Amino acid sequence: MTDTKTRILDAALALFNRFGERNVTTNHIAGELGISPGNLYYHYRNKAAIVSALFDRYREHLLTLLTVPEGPLTWEDKMGYFEGILASMWEGRFLHRDLAHFLHQDPVLRDRYKVFVEDSLARGLGIYQRLRDSGLIEASDEELRALLVNTWVLAASWPGFTHGLNPEISGDETLDRGLLRQGIYQIICLEAPYLRGEALDHLDAMKREYRLDETALDRLFGAVGQVRSE
Amino acid sequence: MTDTKTRILDAALALFNRFGERNVTTNHIAGELGISPGNLYYHYRNKAAIVSALFDRYREHLLTLLTVPEGPLTWEDKMGYFEGILASMWEGRFLHRDLAHFLHQDPVLRDRYKVFVEDSLARGLGIYQRLRDSGLIEASDEELRALLVNTWVLAASWPGFTHGLNPEISGDETLDRGLLRQGIYQIICLEAPYLRGEALDHLDAMKREYRLDETALDRLFGAVGQVRSE
Repeated sequence: MTDTKTRILDAALALFNRFGERNVTTNHIAGELGISPGNLYYHYRNKAAIVSALFDRYREHLLTLLTVPEGPLTWEDKMGYFEGILASMWEGRFLHRDLAHFLHQDPVLRDRYKVFVEDSLARGLGIYQRLRDSGLIEASDEELRALLVNTWVLAASWPGFTHGLNPEISGDETLDRGLLRQGIYQIICLEAPYLRGEALDHLDAMKREYRLDETALDRLFGAVGQVRSE
Repeated sequence: MTDTKTRILDAALALFNRFGERNVTTNHIAGELGISPGNLYYHYRNKAAIVSALFDRYREHLLTLLTVPEGPLTWEDKMGYFEGILASMWEGRFLHRDLAHFLHQDPVLRDRYKVFVEDSLARGLGIYQRLRDSGLIEASDEELRALLVNTWVLAASWPGFTHGLNPEISGDETLDRGLLRQGIYQIICLEAPYLRGEALDHLDAMKREYRLDETALDRLFGAVGQVRSE
């Protein structure tokens, strides 16, 4: 049986992702679980403590995903990273959408987030180097480092950028997930010039896999959708 | 002689950029100018109205910069765009640092920002196409569009991303400006695989021009600085 602490986190995560953390109170969370506010406060002294615990969960998930594996990598491994990053972004989408807000309101969380970024970048560099050793990427050390930073900033900023323009998207899970997939497409385009071997052979298929169709693009973010190349 | 409305905007911009908009009240702005709060309210009914007027100024500046010029472009034109974008980001840095916050608190500003993004992307695509016609860039229509979106998201997110990790930077103008220059370096790396002709010949010089040295990188954002390529 799931313990109360975990049930509180699960319920809070579902509500935050659906309605946005700003629109959800601890009373909503307690109500959803059918427990008293006092019982909730016994486990988490306030909403920020819940956000902080959900960040821990998110961090563990992503750092596990970014563990540099033994041996050479295949392009299927590369696809696996995209799927893993997508799942992780989807699971913690309320965090990404409003990251600046959380870092601003909780200096302790900010310090922990910095260490997390540091760890993730170090692991990400390890994976890129392994992809290079495996002949799937060709890039100088400087190119690899710049690519890594651009990938990170893009992945971390994409949900906030697109939701900032279209806050109503979070009410439609299909569109919302499509939006994140389009973010993966943008990362694939970032890496495209450096891909070699099997990764290059599968580039078009990978793009097709994640790219939104034009109609959804227009609906999601007209600004970008309307940039047509005639 | 500068009118009071303009003096209020100039003073507010300087204070917002230095201390962050959240830490500056209309009383601070009035005090800085030696006018009464009532006089200030006569011109701008609240702080959000000042932010909105400063956004207008920023938007005009950037859209003018992104006007697609007549005739072929040279790599010096390309450098000019980087310098112009840098100046514009520097001038409006308080906006970039905390964009999600402003879009969240003012739905009217958000709608206007969307139109601005749309206009900027359309003009940006025009410039990229002109650079392609001028033989400075080689890319398919799809690559050009993805590059444009990635450049925009990176430029718009860079100040918020780095300041979110290091809010104390804004107290040191030299470091703060260096941080924005490093953002331009990241954009150059994004475009690098597509550069041709004179733009490619000058790639290394352009990178050197904007890249921070290692010591400043470490001080600015240890996370990224510590990703060493051995």
